[in-house]
Amino acid sequence: MSDAVSRLKVGIVGGTGYTGVELLRLLSQHPHVELAAITSRKEDGMPVADMFPNLRGRVNLAFQTPDTAGLDQCDVVFFATPHGVAMSQAEHLLSKGVRIIDLAADFRLHDTQVFEQWYKMPHSCPGVLAEAVYGLPEINRARIAGARVIGNPGCYPTTVLLGLAPLLGAGKHYIDTAGIIADCKSGVSGAGRKAEVGTLFSEASDNFKAYGVSGHRHHPEISEHLQNLAGTPVGLTFVPHLVPMIRGMFSTLYLRIQPEARTTDFQALFEQHYANETFVDVMPAGSLPETRSVRASNQLRIALHRPGNGDQLIVLVTQDNLVKGASGQAVQNMNIMFGLPETAGLQHIAVLP
Amino acid sequence: MSDAVSRLKVGIVGGTGYTGVELLRLLSQHPHVELAAITSRKEDGMPVADMFPNLRGRVNLAFQTPDTAGLDQCDVVFFATPHGVAMSQAEHLLSKGVRIIDLAADFRLHDTQVFEQWYKMPHSCPGVLAEAVYGLPEINRARIAGARVIGNPGCYPTTVLLGLAPLLGAGKHYIDTAGIIADCKSGVSGAGRKAEVGTLFSEASDNFKAYGVSGHRHHPEISEHLQNLAGTPVGLTFVPHLVPMIRGMFSTLYLRIQPEARTTDFQALFEQHYANETFVDVMPAGSLPETRSVRASNQLRIALHRPGNGDQLIVLVTQDNLVKGASGQAVQNMNIMFGLPETAGLQHIAVLP
Amino acid sequence: MSDAVSRLKVGIVGGTGYTGVELLRLLSQHPHVELAAITSRKEDGMPVADMFPNLRGRVNLAFQTPDTAGLDQCDVVFFATPHGVAMSQAEHLLSKGVRIIDLAADFRLHDTQVFEQWYKMPHSCPGVLAEAVYGLPEINRARIAGARVIGNPGCYPTTVLLGLAPLLGAGKHYIDTAGIIADCKSGVSGAGRKAEVGTLFSEASDNFKAYGVSGHRHHPEISEHLQNLAGTPVGLTFVPHLVPMIRGMFSTLYLRIQPEARTTDFQALFEQHYANETFVDVMPAGSLPETRSVRASNQLRIALHRPGNGDQLIVLVTQDNLVKGASGQAVQNMNIMFGLPETAGLQHIAVLP
Amino acid sequence: MSDAVSRLKVGIVGGTGYTGVELLRLLSQHPHVELAAITSRKEDGMPVADMFPNLRGRVNLAFQTPDTAGLDQCDVVFFATPHGVAMSQAEHLLSKGVRIIDLAADFRLHDTQVFEQWYKMPHSCPGVLAEAVYGLPEINRARIAGARVIGNPGCYPTTVLLGLAPLLGAGKHYIDTAGIIADCKSGVSGAGRKAEVGTLFSEASDNFKAYGVSGHRHHPEISEHLQNLAGTPVGLTFVPHLVPMIRGMFSTLYLRIQPEARTTDFQALFEQHYANETFVDVMPAGSLPETRSVRASNQLRIALHRPGNGDQLIVLVTQDNLVKGASGQAVQNMNIMFGLPETAGLQHIAVLP
Repeated sequence: MSDAVSRLKVGIVGGTGYTGVELLRLLSQHPHVELAAITSRKEDGMPVADMFPNLRGRVNLAFQTPDTAGLDQCDVVFFATPHGVAMSQAEHLLSKGVRIIDLAADFRLHDTQVFEQWYKMPHSCPGVLAEAVYGLPEINRARIAGARVIGNPGCYPTTVLLGLAPLLGAGKHYIDTAGIIADCKSGVSGAGRKAEVGTLFSEASDNFKAYGVSGHRHHPEISEHLQNLAGTPVGLTFVPHLVPMIRGMFSTLYLRIQPEARTTDFQALFEQHYANETFVDVMPAGSLPETRSVRASNQLRIALHRPGNGDQLIVLVTQDNLVKGASGQAVQNMNIMFGLPETAGLQHIAVLP
Repeated sequence: MSDAVSRLKVGIVGGTGYTGVELLRLLSQHPHVELAAITSRKEDGMPVADMFPNLRGRVNLAFQTPDTAGLDQCDVVFFATPHGVAMSQAEHLLSKGVRIIDLAADFRLHDTQVFEQWYKMPHSCPGVLAEAVYGLPEINRARIAGARVIGNPGCYPTTVLLGLAPLLGAGKHYIDTAGIIADCKSGVSGAGRKAEVGTLFSEASDNFKAYGVSGHRHHPEISEHLQNLAGTPVGLTFVPHLVPMIRGMFSTLYLRIQPEARTTDFQALFEQHYANETFVDVMPAGSLPETRSVRASNQLRIALHRPGNGDQLIVLVTQDNLVKGASGQAVQNMNIMFGLPETAGLQHIAVLP
Repeated sequence: MSDAVSRLKVGIVGGTGYTGVELLRLLSQHPHVELAAITSRKEDGMPVADMFPNLRGRVNLAFQTPDTAGLDQCDVVFFATPHGVAMSQAEHLLSKGVRIIDLAADFRLHDTQVFEQWYKMPHSCPGVLAEAVYGLPEINRARIAGARVIGNPGCYPTTVLLGLAPLLGAGKHYIDTAGIIADCKSGVSGAGRKAEVGTLFSEASDNFKAYGVSGHRHHPEISEHLQNLAGTPVGLTFVPHLVPMIRGMFSTLYLRIQPEARTTDFQALFEQHYANETFVDVMPAGSLPETRSVRASNQLRIALHRPGNGDQLIVLVTQDNLVKGASGQAVQNMNIMFGLPETAGLQHIAVLP
Repeated sequence: MSDAVSRLKVGIVGGTGYTGVELLRLLSQHPHVELAAITSRKEDGMPVADMFPNLRGRVNLAFQTPDTAGLDQCDVVFFATPHGVAMSQAEHLLSKGVRIIDLAADFRLHDTQVFEQWYKMPHSCPGVLAEAVYGLPEINRARIAGARVIGNPGCYPTTVLLGLAPLLGAGKHYIDTAGIIADCKSGVSGAGRKAEVGTLFSEASDNFKAYGVSGHRHHPEISEHLQNLAGTPVGLTFVPHLVPMIRGMFSTLYLRIQPEARTTDFQALFEQHYANETFVDVMPAGSLPETRSVRASNQLRIALHRPGNGDQLIVLVTQDNLVKGASGQAVQNMNIMFGLPETAGLQHIAVLP
């Protein structure tokens, strides 16, 4: 069938976590993709549908070891692996003409010292890092189109950066960039599928807490890219919290409006900025977005509030951490890299209730 | 565009509940459907996306009153209404050539006395009822194909009937049909979107209970159709329970194997019975289905157990109560009625986690 | 029995909500209380244990109408009613020598104009309001001891005020009081036991959202009492959020440290401030409190963070919204008013997991 | 203080799981107990309140190694350990006059072959087993009073045995004991505090499944003690299910009434049987018990149903799996063993909502 010929051959390295199963869900329904291989040393030979029963009858792949998977014959390989894996295989795959989308942090931070400080490992391929593009399409679309390697953004950074992007840039003095506050909340799937006491049902259910207050790996990632947007260093306070829900992320951004910007129509500013973005929904002024409105979809929704028309701008941002915050965004990047319609395979409507 | 010409014009009466929003999610992504109208007297003029924010940017319909909605120009109308509404409008729509799929109980029970006893209202159109077909495709496919009116099955009956169908029929003496036990568990969305204390988060969360033990409306529905399958009256004990989850239904069926059937290979029996059914998955012997494996999909999964190879057959059945248990099955019925591929618009993979 | 003679006779007006059942749980186990009456016009005659099955075998009261309940023979009456009820009955009860603890807002705001603006009703007894004491023991203990009428604080205000109290006061210049940010999160029980769509399990579960961003009734309450503490008006941004859990409240306070206070040991400041408070736990520096650590107990826990030793002080505060945030605090106030040990009936250890 | 002299010295071996923290919650509030020691090799030196933050300020113990804990100077030692630990230490402790309550399975099954088959380890002290008493007070109270060693019942067995006890016994022919069906549902805390993928929040939340259908360790335990009650072997089908809630257990028992017992007043039978039992609540006929009605309390509630007055008796039983199903029952056993009031330390009212 001629269609098969034109499909992208896609490989996934490490598909046993939640970003892995979400890639499988999205890619197996993608009209231009052929799932060629998925690897896991530990689960070699196990059908993926045995691990993820939602895939029964829909995905017939089994996990393979990296050696036998033929990844170097793929058009693109996604890394849904722990930090450090993608950078160890990147040069080889690139040399074979395979493009790379890493869902971990190997290619997100361009300062290797910062990477090493936060991820506690040396960066093993700074050369590839130098050419890697940060895969936030609404900010970097043109560079993504030409990239061989994508560092797919973290979930928190996606919400904070897209919530702030319209306010930052050369000559823009809307907000006090020295005092940005991001109070962020994530569903538990953000912690991954590792067996750990802290994310057991009996620990995380019917509970709420902050974590990583003294320092979280997404802080330097957000800061680096905010600085890129603003053109100057920014001051960011970032506090993540854990919400007893599976999927969903919600960021409440507190921004002090500069005196000279008090008359700005921020609603119009955001609407215009994102007018052509399918996956960013600037809701009507005063809206109250809910995480369930994006559950299992690639949509990110933004709403603006300015209580009492004062000097505080509050930006509410929500997404599904596993879709726009991870695997959906990765597929969006793939679509851009290969000249496919950007929405291909990503048009699922959010599941509510 | 020629495609639009060939699309079915679909109307929905009463779309403010969970089966309504689920119909909208499925039908708006259906390749052969044009959503023509949705009615709600109470919400006349409100965009559906204001009530159901997952539909923002994807469904542009607003609720209309029935008078202005032009339902009689549709090819098919779904009733996602309280019991009693569909039967009041059925004759008029049929006279205009519109087919009807009722997600309430008006056309499920063919004995009007039983209907009146359980639903506390007279049946206002026994004539239509006489021709209505019970819309369980895996049992009634041929009749559905020719039907003008479908009584879409209740959620519990779908699981119990499909879990028992391979065992019942003329000349089949596999189980003691006088002592069928169905211990059933449903997510809270099965109770609908009505404001009631009992289904508040603070009441239903972190809690488990049985309800309707002394009598539940699905009991006569299951009994009638079990009897149709078996050719004789059956004895059914049915206890529904409420599970603190949004979607999902799980039925544990306890069946006493007849002495003459002790050597039957029930696994093979079920596999053969459902070999050609896309939406019924007979899992390998000894499997443990989970509701999340079908979340937001039209799949129903069955697993068989026979502890100690004794005389008890345990059939585990799971589905999403809003999809295969309601709106997805309704779309499946529509596909059959109009000669579309039965899986059209129903191929969403379950969302996990 | 002589003990009965010395027990306080306690009445509850309106006990059909969550603060009502929590009062019943606490007071029925209180060593110095005799539950004398509970009123509900609507449920007259119903045993409270029929509505709240946790009380079966432990509380034998039935709801009565206010006319027959003999409230004016009680030592103290709790109002667990909608706003406006307590102020309509206060003068009569006071004239009979009965003390009053109102869990609604009638006696929280001392500016009747502000009350009327936010609660949309005239204040019917400003005379009683003038003598009423805001029942936050850790701030107003001495005045509570002599009060006849207590306005029991709102849940959010309790967390914000206790999280800020050590930083505010005459001559204290620790933080920029013009830019206080309170990002607050509450379990769903805070919305009460009313039948409303928004708090149904299928709406509120597996979901997260902000609400009341443009204005919430607790904002003026917090502001008034912050101003009382600070001695000057304060600037407060307050955003409440809804968490899919039954009980629990978590407030994240963002405070800019004044230049002259950069060398302050805030940990020591808080520890000293609350050194003698049984129900306020200042956790070790860097701690991460969790709502479950106070579930069903009267404890409130505070932890301080100062990322990078910079100019942002982050105060994390958690409590059970129904206990320290409502009914437990009300009992604490009663204990103080009647000279009982402040911890009497309030020593339940939090339930974990 | 003289009171301290008269308090029981209590030790806990292995307190890092959920039955451990629940023992700590209950025992630290028990009027006749002095918590003397808690052991954990792995967490030696860690204050228990660092692991379980609900205990902050209330329990000052730290974990110790067994060698230094002085367990042999305790009056009683609870084992909240994995299976196999208690039997390795029992003889030594008994020789020192210490009584033992094991919350694991070492002393539940009197047939060591059955134990070895299900627990995959040899039974190392059959001598102690021979004298051990199965600690279900409502069945074995007299023997518990004189016991040195208690095998504290499993959670499922407690519900099934107490739900059936009034129906079984010499000369009683109420039900067909060859066909008992127990469809049981448990909250996730029943699986313990081990880090395992299957009980992660993102796996177990918003999900429902059966497990252990082909065989569960509680099956032989239930069978042995049912047989003891009935005086004859019984036929039991037992299917456990996992409910997305932290605490709570609910068993639905399906019993076929014998022809000669069709006129029995089962409601009266149960009420009389449990008339003097504080912790067993036979609810009015037709009641629908809920797990939350016993959350965090030692209460077990039973309701009877007989649909259509037919030949099926349905017994609904609910308890908190960590209290009456584990730690609360263990404390109840301790009270009986030491002649304390049976309800001492166990009068907490269930937490609702």
